[in-house]
Order: sequence, then C-alpha cells, then structure tokens
Amino acid sequence: MDLALLKVMVEQQIPFNRFLGLELTHAEPGRVRLELPFRDDFLGDWARAALHGGVISMVADVAGGVAVWSTLESPSLRVSTIDLRVDYLRPGKTERLIAEAAIVRVGGRIGVSDVRLFHPGAEDHLIATGKGVYAIKALKHPPAAPPA
Amino acid sequence: MDLALLKVMVEQQIPFNRFLGLELTHAEPGRVRLELPFRDDFLGDWARAALHGGVISMVADVAGGVAVWSTLESPSLRVSTIDLRVDYLRPGKTERLIAEAAIVRVGGRIGVSDVRLFHPGAEDHLIATGKGVYAIKALKHPPAAPPA
Amino acid sequence: MDLALLKVMVEQQIPFNRFLGLELTHAEPGRVRLELPFRDDFLGDWARAALHGGVISMVADVAGGVAVWSTLESPSLRVSTIDLRVDYLRPGKTERLIAEAAIVRVGGRIGVSDVRLFHPGAEDHLIATGKGVYAIKALKHPPAAPPA
Amino acid sequence: MDLALLKVMVEQQIPFNRFLGLELTHAEPGRVRLELPFRDDFLGDWARAALHGGVISMVADVAGGVAVWSTLESPSLRVSTIDLRVDYLRPGKTERLIAEAAIVRVGGRIGVSDVRLFHPGAEDHLIATGKGVYAIKALKHPPAAPPA
Repeated sequence: MDLALLKVMVEQQIPFNRFLGLELTHAEPGRVRLELPFRDDFLGDWARAALHGGVISMVADVAGGVAVWSTLESPSLRVSTIDLRVDYLRPGKTERLIAEAAIVRVGGRIGVSDVRLFHPGAEDHLIATGKGVYAIKALKHPPAAPPA
Repeated sequence: MDLALLKVMVEQQIPFNRFLGLELTHAEPGRVRLELPFRDDFLGDWARAALHGGVISMVADVAGGVAVWSTLESPSLRVSTIDLRVDYLRPGKTERLIAEAAIVRVGGRIGVSDVRLFHPGAEDHLIATGKGVYAIKALKHPPAAPPA
Repeated sequence: MDLALLKVMVEQQIPFNRFLGLELTHAEPGRVRLELPFRDDFLGDWARAALHGGVISMVADVAGGVAVWSTLESPSLRVSTIDLRVDYLRPGKTERLIAEAAIVRVGGRIGVSDVRLFHPGAEDHLIATGKGVYAIKALKHPPAAPPA
Repeated sequence: MDLALLKVMVEQQIPFNRFLGLELTHAEPGRVRLELPFRDDFLGDWARAALHGGVISMVADVAGGVAVWSTLESPSLRVSTIDLRVDYLRPGKTERLIAEAAIVRVGGRIGVSDVRLFHPGAEDHLIATGKGVYAIKALKHPPAAPPA
C-alpha cells in the first residue's frame, strides 16, 4: 500500500480521526506511529487532569488497524476490528499521545497488532497497551478512484 | 450514590463525555444506560456510513465504569479502568448509539461490568459487547464540595 | 452438525478433553453445556482448596468453540480459537464445573461465543465468564470417514 | 521472594501445575520462564497434531501470575488472576512449550504481565501471546511455616 495514500486515508478520509485530529507520523509495512495532539476536550477526570480512557482506546484501535492495513497490497481491501483489548497502566497526562503499533501476525483474512501508548520522550512509561484483532475484507463497492 | 449527581458528573464534569455529547438516560445501582446521539463526525469508514470503532469503545468504557460507580456509597471514591475489551459484532449505523451496562461483580477494590451496545429498537442486533475491569480508589484530594 | 457425533468428537477425539474428563451434557445449535467432574489434580492453590485458573480457562475455551462448532453444517469445517478472554469472578470450589456457552455471532469465517462458568445449583454465582473468537476453516485433509 | 522457594511452590505446591508437569526454569524478579514438556495428552485436534488451546492458556495464566509473584517481598501475599487474554497466533506443535512472562506494571494491589509462548529455538515464531491482570492479596491464614 502506498504510504502517502495511507496518510491521507487515515487523517482525512475517516471522519472521527479527523474530528479528533489524529496524525499518522510514521508508516512502514507492518509498523506505524500515530499521534494525537492534546486538547482539553480529551480529559476524563473532573478531579485531576488525566486523559479520558476512551481517547486512549480510540487511538489504540486505529493504530492497530492501520498497522494491518499498511501490509496490504490492494487498496480494495478493508480492515475492520473484530475485537480490541486495552490495558490501562498509568494515567495519561495533558500531553500529546503517541501510539506505536506493530503487526504480530497477518494472514489472508485476519491480522493481529500490538500497540504501545506513551507520551513524547517517555516511551518507557507506557500509559496503556492495546491488542487488536482485525478482519481483512474485500470492499463490496471499491471506490472507482482512490479517495483523495 | 445520588443518581442525579451521577448524571451531572457523567454528562457535565467529564470533558470528553461532554465533547461527544454522551447522555446518561437511566441509572439504578449497578445498572445504567448511556446514549450518544449520532453526528457525522463519528463515522469511521470512508467507503460506507459506519460508526468508528473508537466511538463504540469509548461509550463501552464509560458505561461500564458508570455502572460500577453507581454502586458506590461515597462520593470520594473514584473509578478508573484497568482493562477493557470490546467485541465488534456488526457495523454501527448512522443512528443514536445505546449502551446498557450491568455490574458482574463489585468488591471493595475492583468492579467488573458487562456492556451491550445497540441502536434504538434493535436490542437483539448487538453492535458490540464490552467487558471492563475497574479499580475503585479513594480520591487523594476529594473536592471540598461535590462538583455541581 | 449431528449432535451425537459432536459428543463423541468433544469427549473422545480431542486428547486433552479426554485427559481431563470433560463431558458434553447438552447441545443444540449455538448453545452447549459442558461439565468437568472435580478431581484433586485440578486445584490451583496450596493454601486453600480452589480450582486452578487454567482449568477454568480450558473449559471456557472448549465450550465457546463447541458452541460455534454446533452451528456448522459440514463436518469438514474446523474451529480454532483466535483469542480468548476469561474474567475470574470468584474462586472455584472443589465441585463439578459447568460451562454454558452460547454463540453471539457466527459468520462464514468467524464465530464469537459467550461462556458462563458455575457450579451445580449455583448458576447465579458465576465463577468466571469467557468470551472467545473462533476461526472457521475448511480442513485441508478431512477424514476419509468421520472419526468414530 | 526467594526464587528457590518460588520453584518449589510453582512445581510442587500447585496441584494442577504438578499434574501437567510444569517447570519453572528461570526466575528473576519480574521475569520468569516456564516450560511444559510435551505429552500426547496435550493434543487438541483429532485431525492433526496440534496442542490444545487450553494447554496454552493454562501455561500463559501461570507464567503471568508467577512473574507478578516473583516481585513480592512477603510470602504471605498471594496472587490471583482477575482476567486473562490469550491470542493464538499459530498451531502449537508436539514439542516442549515455553512461556516467558514479564511484568508490565506491579502496584500494591494489582500486577499486569505479558506472556510470550513458543517452542525451543523458535522464539520468533510465537504460538500465542497472553496478557493477565492479577490481584495481590494478603493471605487470610498464611501457612505457619513456608510450604516445603
């Protein structure tokens, strides 16, 4: 898959990604990095400044899926989540959130990814880890032209 | 816990909930219903109109946590997610998303909830199920007055 | 699938099931019950008499898979676990362990099951719950005759 | 925790571990290796020689728990599984199964471990991965003398 195309798809073509401001900052086949700049809207705790768990699980889900997607040859294949598990290890801070995802296994029909979430410069202090299982399917109605 | 207070906390005091427009529409101790009115921003697929998986996992996480929270006596106890698993069963449509959560077990330190997600009038066509494990902790600095 | 054949397969043809003494005591398409008679070998705690978590997860895995299997038309289809999650809710006692599994969704390639584990007469005191995702595959070398 | 004592506990004091023949072959605080010699009883598939998923999940559960246990100071603390997830990546062969577990986080009440399962000399061909969350509790009736 063309990684420049992947960036457009991830950032521009998926409405909820664009709504939150998710960025694809690195991609090679099977390994991607996404980043989410902090906004006050992403807080989850009224008593202290901590990222909402839903923000973290959302970024984990996307990162794992994009890692699988980055390995596919054909743009008419689509990836959808079968299941996702997120383990929350420490509170997320009011900083940019980084997710690095790597495929564990990709077959013809199913891909599995590991995701690590952390803040800039603190890769050893994981905020959360994720594991997702994704179905790989042919699009029924592939776009006549690639989305742009 | 005062369920009217719970509604204010869930809808108003948690920034990401308010940002997305999450509503607490039913609450009794150990059993809650949350609803998320649809917005185009919540789509996840450029090729067809389907809810983003991150929207679904976010609502599952909150619903499970609120179900645990609804059983607590003291407002100075807080609930945080230890881990969350979401199974995606069918694509979510461009409709209001409903999550019903019920506690499976609540002890002094840990609560476990089951969550079912579906659209209005289609409770038998689950979009996803969630299972969350939550830590119950005393707030270090409980608010001097309850948030209002 | 012939449910009498299913019973032979589950109890006799799968070595680890037979080794532990697992019984299929009820099966209808999409809903099964398995039971494991207690043995001292199944204990997991030296300080108190509690079932080993590995016994519980093993029974959960099999029950979920058999529930998917029970829906298949062709004996040349096989079910293998993609992922399994088990939530442990209370210690298992020195009694027969019962697992009831029901399919949540079965498609052409993937099945998902819910499993509830409890002791006889104590269905409301769940020991654990399980959720498994299973791949449905054609056997490369289906047995010339059904196993008997 | 005394790692020689840990080995006795894991191999001798836990009946189901002893029943299957589980060996603790390496332990340092927060990182352990367990091995299970192959037996025909561990097969899970009548049509081909593959390890039963329940054998794999059992070893994952124990390895993750022992990794948490290996970090504890006091022998009167006990570890019990809150939840376990296993992702099955390829069929297990008729060989010795190795599980390496490392803690992701250990607090006063909860520990989280990652587990990787593979065959000897094939660490890059993972059979499965596991993730477990464990509760750390004081024994109500700690043994008068350490078990021996």
